[in-house]
Amino acid sequence: MTIASPAPAAIVAPPLPRGFTAACVSSGIKASGAPDLAMLRCPNGAVAAAMFTTNRFAAAPVLASRRNLRDSRGHCSALVVNSGCANAATGPEGAADAEAMIDAVAAACDCTPAAVLVNSTGIIGKRLPIDRVTGAMPALANACAEGACEPFARGIMTTDTRPKMSTRTVAGSGGAEIRVTGMAKGAGMIHPNMATTIAAVTTDAEVTPAELDGMLRHAVERSFHRISIDGDTSTNDSVFCLASGAAGPAKDRAALQKALDEVLGDLARMVVQDGEGFTRGLEVHVRGAANDADALLIARTVATSTLVRCAVTGGDPNWGRIVAAAGRSGAKIDPELLIVKAGGVTLFQQGAPAAVEKTVAERAFSQDSVVIELDLGLGGGRDFFLSSGLTEDYVRLNADYST
Amino acid sequence: MTIASPAPAAIVAPPLPRGFTAACVSSGIKASGAPDLAMLRCPNGAVAAAMFTTNRFAAAPVLASRRNLRDSRGHCSALVVNSGCANAATGPEGAADAEAMIDAVAAACDCTPAAVLVNSTGIIGKRLPIDRVTGAMPALANACAEGACEPFARGIMTTDTRPKMSTRTVAGSGGAEIRVTGMAKGAGMIHPNMATTIAAVTTDAEVTPAELDGMLRHAVERSFHRISIDGDTSTNDSVFCLASGAAGPAKDRAALQKALDEVLGDLARMVVQDGEGFTRGLEVHVRGAANDADALLIARTVATSTLVRCAVTGGDPNWGRIVAAAGRSGAKIDPELLIVKAGGVTLFQQGAPAAVEKTVAERAFSQDSVVIELDLGLGGGRDFFLSSGLTEDYVRLNADYST
Repeated sequence: MTIASPAPAAIVAPPLPRGFTAACVSSGIKASGAPDLAMLRCPNGAVAAAMFTTNRFAAAPVLASRRNLRDSRGHCSALVVNSGCANAATGPEGAADAEAMIDAVAAACDCTPAAVLVNSTGIIGKRLPIDRVTGAMPALANACAEGACEPFARGIMTTDTRPKMSTRTVAGSGGAEIRVTGMAKGAGMIHPNMATTIAAVTTDAEVTPAELDGMLRHAVERSFHRISIDGDTSTNDSVFCLASGAAGPAKDRAALQKALDEVLGDLARMVVQDGEGFTRGLEVHVRGAANDADALLIARTVATSTLVRCAVTGGDPNWGRIVAAAGRSGAKIDPELLIVKAGGVTLFQQGAPAAVEKTVAERAFSQDSVVIELDLGLGGGRDFFLSSGLTEDYVRLNADYST
Repeated sequence: MTIASPAPAAIVAPPLPRGFTAACVSSGIKASGAPDLAMLRCPNGAVAAAMFTTNRFAAAPVLASRRNLRDSRGHCSALVVNSGCANAATGPEGAADAEAMIDAVAAACDCTPAAVLVNSTGIIGKRLPIDRVTGAMPALANACAEGACEPFARGIMTTDTRPKMSTRTVAGSGGAEIRVTGMAKGAGMIHPNMATTIAAVTTDAEVTPAELDGMLRHAVERSFHRISIDGDTSTNDSVFCLASGAAGPAKDRAALQKALDEVLGDLARMVVQDGEGFTRGLEVHVRGAANDADALLIARTVATSTLVRCAVTGGDPNWGRIVAAAGRSGAKIDPELLIVKAGGVTLFQQGAPAAVEKTVAERAFSQDSVVIELDLGLGGGRDFFLSSGLTEDYVRLNADYST
C-alpha cells in the first residue's frame, strides 16, 4: 500500500460532475457572517454511500443520515451541511433539529425526507439556530447551480484557511468522460471542538449502491483512515459519496476506483496541511513488517507520537524517538533487522546508529514534509500514515480559546 | 480502585530503611558536572523484584538486569543507575558497556555480577563513556552511607527540577518498625529522549522474592501504570524494589502492601507534577462502567486526549472534548446515562449539557489539578488516570532542543 497520490498542485474550483448542482449561503449560524450552509443537489437523484464516525457520541445529523441512507437503500437527492455548530451532544432537542433540517431540505428540493442527507460541523453541545437554518433552505435550493464545486467547499469550512477540492477524470464505457470531484473540510480548532472532518465526493459514473459503498470504503481506508491531526475522533466525522450516473458506467472499474482513491487521498492530505498550527508534514512509510496490520500499527504509532511530532517541528533528526515509538507499538520488531531512514538517509540499522553527518540528517528533517521510512525486514507487510509536527501554535489555539 | 494517596506534602530526604546505603558521584557523563551515577547498596543482600519497559527496544542495561534478576532468583547486592545517557539502541557495543558496568559494580561491592542491577537514563543512541563510569565505581561504593535516600534520588535526575522521594512506615511482627522508601526520576525532556522513568523502592521488611514481585506489580498497576506525560513509553522505564529483611516480617501483609502502594502513588504523582512544561494536573476518575477494563480505557483516553489536555491548560470547561474522547475510547457507553463532572460540578447528563453557570464551570478548570469524573451508569467498573495539561512550553522544549 502506498499513498494514493503525491501532493497535488493548487487546484482552483474544479467542476462538479454532470447531474450535480451546488450553492452556499450565510444563514446566520456564524457570528462572522461567513457562509455556513452548503447544499449539493442531484436533481435526478443519485446513488449514495457514506461512512460515519465510530464515536459513541455520534451527532444527531449523523444518526439521522445513517437512517435515511438505510431507508432509501442508498439513494439521495440532496446533501446539506451546516458549519458553525455540530449539533452533537444536544439531546432530544438536537435530534428534533436534525429532523427539522431534513424536512426543510425535502420541501425545498421537492423530494422525500429519506432522500436527504445532512451533517453539521462546529461547536459540540450547542443547539442549532434551527429557524434560521430552515428559513434559508428555499433560497439555498434555488441558488444551486451547475459548474464549480467551490460553493459547497466554502460553505462547510469552519476554521479552514482555504477550501479543499480535488478532481480526476476517467473514461466512460460509452465514450463519455467520467468525473470524480471531492470537497472536504479540515480540522482547524480556533473555536474548541471544531474537530470535524467532513468530505463529499461526487461522480457522474453509473454504479449500484453496493458498488459505490465498496469503492468508498476502499478509498477511505487509504486516505482519511491514514491521517491524524491530534488523535481525537470527532462526533461528526463523515464522508459522503454520491453518483449521479449521468455519464454512464466507467470503461474500467479499476480506473474509477483509482480516481476515487486519488481524490480522497488529495483531500486527506489537504486536511493535514491545513491543520491548526501546521508548519511541516510528517509521512511515515512502513514495509517489511510481519503483516499489514503490524505495518499500520507502527506507522500510526510513529506518526502520532507526541515526541516524534515535536522533533519534526524542531527539524531535529531524533531517530531515538522513532525507534522508541515503533518499539512500544506492540508490533513484532527485531531491533537487529530494523532500518530507519528519513528523507532517504539511513539513521539506524543493525541495532545501532548509522554513521551519518549531522547536517545531512538535519536536512532530511527540514523539508516541507519529513518522510520517515521503516523497513522491518520481517515480511511483506506495508502501510503508511500522514500527520504533522506538533506546534506551540496548535497548543495555544486549543488552550487559549474559550467555549 | 482509587488513587493510592492524596498529593503528598513536600517530603525532604526521608531515611532509607535499615540494610541500605546510598551515594552519588559526578563521573563525567554530564557536561554540566551534575551527579550522574547513583548507587544503592544492600551490604547483607536483599530480595529483589523489578518491572521493566515493554518497549521492543529495551535498553542494554534493562536486558542485562532482567537476566541478572532471573539468574540470582530475585536477589541483589547493589543497584546502580547512571543519568545523562540511556545506553539504548547502541548495538553490541552498548551491551558490552552494560556488562562492563555490572562487572565494575561487582568488583567495587565485592559481590557476584548476578547480584548487580543496573539501568541508564538519558539520550537514546549514544554510547556511555564507559571508562569514566567504571573508573568512578570504587569511590561510589566507598561513599555509600546509611541514612538519607536523597543522594540516590539526586544521582538519577536528568531534567527533573527536584528529587522525588516518599516514605511510609508500618508495624513489624516483632515490634520493629518497617520502613518503605522510594525514589524516582521524572520525564523531563530538555534534551531529547530523556523520557525515562526509573524508580527504586526499598524496604527493610522480610519477604520472599515471589511475595515482593507480587506486591510490586500490585503497586505499579495503581501508580506508574496510571500516569502519562506524553504517551511515549521509553526504552529504559524500570521500577526496582529491594527488601533487606533487616526489620523482619510485617505484622500485617496488607499494611505493607498499602505502604508500598502509597509510596509508588506519591512518586508517580510527583513525576507528573514535574513533567516538562507542567502548569496544571488532570485527574480522570471513572465509575459505573460495564467493567474495570472499560473504566481504564475511558480514563486513559480522556486523560491523554490532546484536546482535553489543551482545555485543561487553558482553564476552559470544554466538556464537549471530554465526551468526544470517551466516545472514541471503544468502551461501552450509553450517552443518555453518562454524567460528566469537573471539580464536582455536573457539566453533562441525560445526553445533553447541564444547566451550569459558566463561571462555576470555569472555576473547576482553574484548580491546580482539574478533577474530571465520569459516571457511566452501566455497572461497577472503576478506574482512574493522572495526566497534565499540554502546554506550549512542553512543545517548545521538545521541538527546539537538538540531539
